[in-house]
Amino acid sequence: MENIKAALLGAGTVGTGVIRVFAENGAIIAARAHAAVTMKTVLVRDVSKPRPELNGFNVTDSIEDILRDDEISIVVELMGGINPAYDYMRRALMAKKHVVTANKDVVAEYGRELVALAEKNGVRFMFEASVGGGIPIILPLKVSLSANRITEIIGIVNGTTNYMLTKMHETRADFASVLKEAQDLGYAEADPTADVDGLDAARKAAILASLAFGTHVSLKDVHVTGIRGIKPLDIEYAKELGYVIKLLAVGRDCREEKGVEVSVHPTFLPKTHPLAAVNGVFNAIFIRGNAVGEAMFYGQGAGSLPTASAVTADIIEVAKGIADGFTVPSGSVYVTDKKICPIDDTVSGYYVRLLVDDKPGVLGAIATAFGNSQVSLKSVMQTKREVPGKAEIVAVTHSVSHKSISTALDKLKSLSVVDEIKNVIRVEDG
Amino acid sequence: MENIKAALLGAGTVGTGVIRVFAENGAIIAARAHAAVTMKTVLVRDVSKPRPELNGFNVTDSIEDILRDDEISIVVELMGGINPAYDYMRRALMAKKHVVTANKDVVAEYGRELVALAEKNGVRFMFEASVGGGIPIILPLKVSLSANRITEIIGIVNGTTNYMLTKMHETRADFASVLKEAQDLGYAEADPTADVDGLDAARKAAILASLAFGTHVSLKDVHVTGIRGIKPLDIEYAKELGYVIKLLAVGRDCREEKGVEVSVHPTFLPKTHPLAAVNGVFNAIFIRGNAVGEAMFYGQGAGSLPTASAVTADIIEVAKGIADGFTVPSGSVYVTDKKICPIDDTVSGYYVRLLVDDKPGVLGAIATAFGNSQVSLKSVMQTKREVPGKAEIVAVTHSVSHKSISTALDKLKSLSVVDEIKNVIRVEDG
Repeated sequence: MENIKAALLGAGTVGTGVIRVFAENGAIIAARAHAAVTMKTVLVRDVSKPRPELNGFNVTDSIEDILRDDEISIVVELMGGINPAYDYMRRALMAKKHVVTANKDVVAEYGRELVALAEKNGVRFMFEASVGGGIPIILPLKVSLSANRITEIIGIVNGTTNYMLTKMHETRADFASVLKEAQDLGYAEADPTADVDGLDAARKAAILASLAFGTHVSLKDVHVTGIRGIKPLDIEYAKELGYVIKLLAVGRDCREEKGVEVSVHPTFLPKTHPLAAVNGVFNAIFIRGNAVGEAMFYGQGAGSLPTASAVTADIIEVAKGIADGFTVPSGSVYVTDKKICPIDDTVSGYYVRLLVDDKPGVLGAIATAFGNSQVSLKSVMQTKREVPGKAEIVAVTHSVSHKSISTALDKLKSLSVVDEIKNVIRVEDG
Repeated sequence: MENIKAALLGAGTVGTGVIRVFAENGAIIAARAHAAVTMKTVLVRDVSKPRPELNGFNVTDSIEDILRDDEISIVVELMGGINPAYDYMRRALMAKKHVVTANKDVVAEYGRELVALAEKNGVRFMFEASVGGGIPIILPLKVSLSANRITEIIGIVNGTTNYMLTKMHETRADFASVLKEAQDLGYAEADPTADVDGLDAARKAAILASLAFGTHVSLKDVHVTGIRGIKPLDIEYAKELGYVIKLLAVGRDCREEKGVEVSVHPTFLPKTHPLAAVNGVFNAIFIRGNAVGEAMFYGQGAGSLPTASAVTADIIEVAKGIADGFTVPSGSVYVTDKKICPIDDTVSGYYVRLLVDDKPGVLGAIATAFGNSQVSLKSVMQTKREVPGKAEIVAVTHSVSHKSISTALDKLKSLSVVDEIKNVIRVEDG
């Protein structure tokens, strides 16, 4: 049996997870890789820090030790962040080493470049763990669904915000208190920006949409709205209307399939949608294809062992290729000339919550303002809560272009009876 | 671009689906296969029958026309049933043609033999569509989850029975009337045996368990119970107790991981289980692995286009291998020496519904009979329905061996106060 050597860049949560998976499932891994795979060297930032979990490995802080080592054929990057991870991976590929990574930042921004660099050097660039942690999604998208024209990919891809929104549905607590709770439990970081403002989800949306639609989507192409603006009242209305609020990463056809919309935003999702039951820190990705119809992939989107499961599967796949003598089977990524649609072209239903004067005729004035902007309403209701002399109006629209809803909101703002547009949230239907 | 020729055996529901997918998504398929793939010849039983959908194809009723045609490198078997499909596939593999199939009967019974035959001949044997229709499950099991020791695989893998059970939950209709409805809608066949008695699910259970546990499971190893015995009353009790009843295909560790239990049976599934929300004709497969934790795959388990999606993905994968010059990358299936556990060793919770005399002390006598058989009860309730002078007792047990529950049932039958054991259904917990 061939002996294949790998190097690990980074020995944090995921890195130690990979070491543990190799320790526990070594026999299974060898049988499936058709080779004995060993972690020879581990790159860490500070070699002086005691790390009992790395006993038996070469530990180094120099990438050169790995790049120059001809015995090492697979580099496993688990450092996270753009730098120096991106530079190390480029150099590893140029040194004709296969690269496996869990790094969504680098894959979202430089994925296409690294795939091309890998091909040029006759090695593989694998990134299953960059989206959805342990959930198999990259390989199913690339291979299992390859006969489909994908028309829609919608994911709950950030566990922190899904945990927070689930809590808000269960307890009616507000954003600040569930954030505090998530931080206390270790689900949210001290600086929660990347999660709650949707940036983490946006990177994953860019990766998923790139693969699903065969076009290059980078972070700046993604329209992003986070969950800071979600109030307990919005959740209450959502429930009354038969929805749950989820933070979704969305990629879908627009401009009659010539373009792609990629966005991250809180969404009113019908309770009957398969994603609606995905709660807590779980992730799921829902795909619509013109042959397969609907498909969904569900599991733990983060965490040491689930992410290590995906990383190790990629290592096994690369090792099997080396052992069996095929090195570049993945080939070029499917490429179309689809363009990113401008936000004004995107189409969605909307939930609009307004604070208005509590007097007769207001509902009519508001319905008229929507109608004059070509926005057709699915439902509208007026309730009296909170502020004396004021009422709340909640409208849910049919599918309209972003341009139309913007026009309608401008009209509403100019009405004297409208005090404030309290919230505007997308509604997913069908 | 290389031109790769394939032959289709069978032009029924799935066969015409494959033709349609190639017609609609030809450009995508060519881009992803790195080759132009053409269906050259279609084998049908009766060549005299007019088939406008096969215009432009060679149509034949002779397998020799295909086996002898050196231009044809991929044989796509979509006839169903053991014979002559099994014979044709064997001969195709021996003629060094790659084989793609959706045939669960043959894969369940002869899958291992055909994989070995393919390897021996340097070609591939692909069967993604044999389980779960369009749902990617075979490839994720073989590749994406390859770093895991799988401890449990549970699937809703038969759309007909899931549709029927969903209807029974929604409408309180009985088995006979939902079967009639399913037949009228084309979801169930005139002879519904294969579906309602669990045989279709059992074949899929054998395939899934073989791959998940690396051992050979054949149809005769699967303990099978169908859904004929499910009464509206059982569904009512399930709801009251917080469960739904689903027909599950189950593979799981037993005898401290030295063995595997494979079975198909109606099951009380907690409402909070990810599979509990899988309704109607949808299928889903839930997997527990020692690294990934929980993962679930959801989608349409049958139907022309969904199944064709999986078949075509396999064709693309094979064609890409031919175009890129790698022919046997899949290699041997992972093999362990796990044995099938005898049914007495399997462990589960149970729901037991009894018709008893309506008099004081009965509940105590029954609880004692359970206790004397080492069966610990989770809940027990007594209600008075239907029969004058009689009461019903519903007991839910903690996890016990099949041997213990059998002993308890024998004891109960011998009690004079017990008129009849109305039903015994497994309970899935945790």
